[in-house]
Amino acid sequence: MSAEFTVGRCFGVGVGPGDPELITVKALKAVQGAPVVAFFAAANAVGNARQVVDGYLLPSQTEMRLQYPVTTETLSDGESYECIMSAFYHRSADLVAAHLDAGRDVAVLCEGDPFFYGSFMYIHNRLAERYPVEVIPGVPAMLAAAAVLGTPLVCLNEVISVLSGVLPADELEHRMRAADAVIVMKLGRNLAKVRSAVERAGLLERAHYVERATMTTQRVMALADADPATSPYFSMVVIPSATAGLR
Amino acid sequence: MSAEFTVGRCFGVGVGPGDPELITVKALKAVQGAPVVAFFAAANAVGNARQVVDGYLLPSQTEMRLQYPVTTETLSDGESYECIMSAFYHRSADLVAAHLDAGRDVAVLCEGDPFFYGSFMYIHNRLAERYPVEVIPGVPAMLAAAAVLGTPLVCLNEVISVLSGVLPADELEHRMRAADAVIVMKLGRNLAKVRSAVERAGLLERAHYVERATMTTQRVMALADADPATSPYFSMVVIPSATAGLR
Repeated sequence: MSAEFTVGRCFGVGVGPGDPELITVKALKAVQGAPVVAFFAAANAVGNARQVVDGYLLPSQTEMRLQYPVTTETLSDGESYECIMSAFYHRSADLVAAHLDAGRDVAVLCEGDPFFYGSFMYIHNRLAERYPVEVIPGVPAMLAAAAVLGTPLVCLNEVISVLSGVLPADELEHRMRAADAVIVMKLGRNLAKVRSAVERAGLLERAHYVERATMTTQRVMALADADPATSPYFSMVVIPSATAGLR
Repeated sequence: MSAEFTVGRCFGVGVGPGDPELITVKALKAVQGAPVVAFFAAANAVGNARQVVDGYLLPSQTEMRLQYPVTTETLSDGESYECIMSAFYHRSADLVAAHLDAGRDVAVLCEGDPFFYGSFMYIHNRLAERYPVEVIPGVPAMLAAAAVLGTPLVCLNEVISVLSGVLPADELEHRMRAADAVIVMKLGRNLAKVRSAVERAGLLERAHYVERATMTTQRVMALADADPATSPYFSMVVIPSATAGLR
């Protein structure tokens, strides 16, 4: 190895919420400039981030699919979800590192923004001390949802909180009451619980349900009308501030 | 006027946090496709959003500067800040509407995202019932700040809250303790108060100060080292979750 040999750079690239045109100019350059393009995907799925760049990838680029080992199946006895995921991210980071060691840049695609609830952070934390890692921020799904709804989200000195539908109902209700605007992510099977918390907080009239904002499969409706049986994990409740934009 | 005459469309365009390459492909098209480009700016300032698109505007485009009437000056007796701002947004909406009535599309530039603490919402709320208004979401400054810091912000079922530095110290401290990750915007003359709240919440070690993230004038440091005397209004405190990306 010559002294001039340099390792590749790793880019955590936020590709935005779904509409391919909601990728930034910088992210597009990073994606098209990297010889290797990595992305996370569930079994039997294209991967949302990969879908976003479908029309942008070049034939010369190598794709690296990092497939989540666990989805909603029951685990075998003695298996820990956290151990499995940790090992998976460790393996994924090693796969990325092998390309970096060979001097090849790798763009790791991230739906929305890499550091805002994105899986890229697990790669980042394993590689950032050893390799040059750069993060390119992206448009998060919650802001795409507000745009799609055509409803100002939050203004002036108001507080917005982002919550997970996995939280207990009482905590959800308490936190909803404490904020001016609220986003609840990770609905899926939590939808009925989340809706009941929204109702108890007195916010149902202002609450919207948004699924896959800006994707071709986007669905938007009043939360009151959303069907808990068909709500995917990647859907959210958007409760804009009652006074955003009133002035 | 012929029956086929159509009014122009109003676009609220999120141009991102400052780096011109952090504009989305869609926003860039909307900006370059509109005969009229409007933007807010303080007296004696270029306007942050206008600065972002400086290299993108075409000679054929008409610019419309909407200059804030009040900044930090003392108001005369009997003048209400809220009344002045309301009248200003009303006038601004009328100026935009005049172009729309003449059939010209107007792109209103917004730093970050239009519906996330952006002034565009005051235009939106005055025009959306009468004209076609579309919002193009953008990368918010807080995500650009996390990217610049190279620090994962929030993950999994964690809660993030966005606060204003204008809030009372006790409320800031209480809300900081209640969240896993925190952003405090609108520092400026509130910096000393905010820092003291961060300290009392036991979060000073994890707290970063970020000024104008991704702009050429960007400054980043530990909050402990930030100087209250020179902090501009458009700076923020970023407190990433202690566990983001650890897995």
